[in-house]
Amino acid sequence: MTIKRNRLQSRLGYSFNDGELLTRALTHRSAGSRHNERLEFLGDSILSLVIAEELFHRFPQVAEGDMSRMRATLVREKTLAELAREFELGDHLILGPGELKSGGFRRESILADTVEALIGAIYLDSGMDTTRTLLLGWYASRLEEIKPGVEQKDPKTRLQEILQGNRKPLPTYTVINVKGEAHNQEFTVQCDVDGLGTPLVGIGSSRRKAEQAAAQQALEQLL
Amino acid sequence: MTIKRNRLQSRLGYSFNDGELLTRALTHRSAGSRHNERLEFLGDSILSLVIAEELFHRFPQVAEGDMSRMRATLVREKTLAELAREFELGDHLILGPGELKSGGFRRESILADTVEALIGAIYLDSGMDTTRTLLLGWYASRLEEIKPGVEQKDPKTRLQEILQGNRKPLPTYTVINVKGEAHNQEFTVQCDVDGLGTPLVGIGSSRRKAEQAAAQQALEQLL
Repeated sequence: MTIKRNRLQSRLGYSFNDGELLTRALTHRSAGSRHNERLEFLGDSILSLVIAEELFHRFPQVAEGDMSRMRATLVREKTLAELAREFELGDHLILGPGELKSGGFRRESILADTVEALIGAIYLDSGMDTTRTLLLGWYASRLEEIKPGVEQKDPKTRLQEILQGNRKPLPTYTVINVKGEAHNQEFTVQCDVDGLGTPLVGIGSSRRKAEQAAAQQALEQLL
Repeated sequence: MTIKRNRLQSRLGYSFNDGELLTRALTHRSAGSRHNERLEFLGDSILSLVIAEELFHRFPQVAEGDMSRMRATLVREKTLAELAREFELGDHLILGPGELKSGGFRRESILADTVEALIGAIYLDSGMDTTRTLLLGWYASRLEEIKPGVEQKDPKTRLQEILQGNRKPLPTYTVINVKGEAHNQEFTVQCDVDGLGTPLVGIGSSRRKAEQAAAQQALEQLL
């Protein structure tokens, strides 16, 4: 047990003062009442701030929208699950019998949530400065690679290019609701993409903005 | 100018070392290129973490879902605009001519965004500890008042009670999409509420969860 844990802590680059916090962070709700969801709530906020602050300083000229998109890429489930696999976290999850049977240790959402819980636990164990340094280490290569330019094309353009690249039909946009008065309208647009079952809905203060928001939803499903 | 600013800083309970940061935080994008949107991006994350951490410690027994809902109440536009009015922030906004004419200094979204930008600016000016102390002061009465119990009824029950209280028809729930394999399904449910134009869509790993998510969307529109 201890050897196994030490291996995990060495992969994380962090050794807990309070081993209970580590246990808690690894415990999925299927395994009992002392599970990791509260730590996940805390960890999500910490990660979000650390990445926001880093992007703010790294890209002093980049607009808010581009920073938001870069952050979304860095903190989304897929990225967190990649980190989890780098840490070989699946071997350390504490799961209930149902999740064990159905392969919960491989499920992206469980892996990603556990990474957030670990971040919350490390923060409680060590404070902001240590956690920030550690997270920037985990993200070093991803931060080096990320570029605002990649996302500078607007979502509708990117969606169109991706679909064309895959020889798929172009998306259709339908205004499904308009509300509010002339100077304060809210548009709701549905974007239909061949092969995406879920309705993708965007809301914005103009038709164009609502379409872009719906296209962004489609991109998040596709990428 | 200085007297006016000092009045604002005294209401905020914070005096800037770098006056440029304050100017920047007050500048709406309509007023030029050196506007406050990047600060708003940073401030949003800081507020989110400070409130998350405070709720985590204040409510050691409360589940993640309830903490999320309490945080959403505390950081939503309406609450931030209330804070802005307490600070009489409208008198200090730096707006472009269009926004000035159309009364942008009274608009909730502009007021709320400016509060977030101020938080970002204060953080850059003073660091995390000062910002946390200040924010907990701003939020002291709201944190005293907020209770997890209010939100402990599930969203469908609360929605039904609110509609019945207003003698309105009950909502209808329709499954509009199911995808994935047996053990990993994703349900999309639409909730229709008399008088709410926007389609309210919820996604979840079961029909029940998707309905609750859709009901939560409806509550957010209604409350």
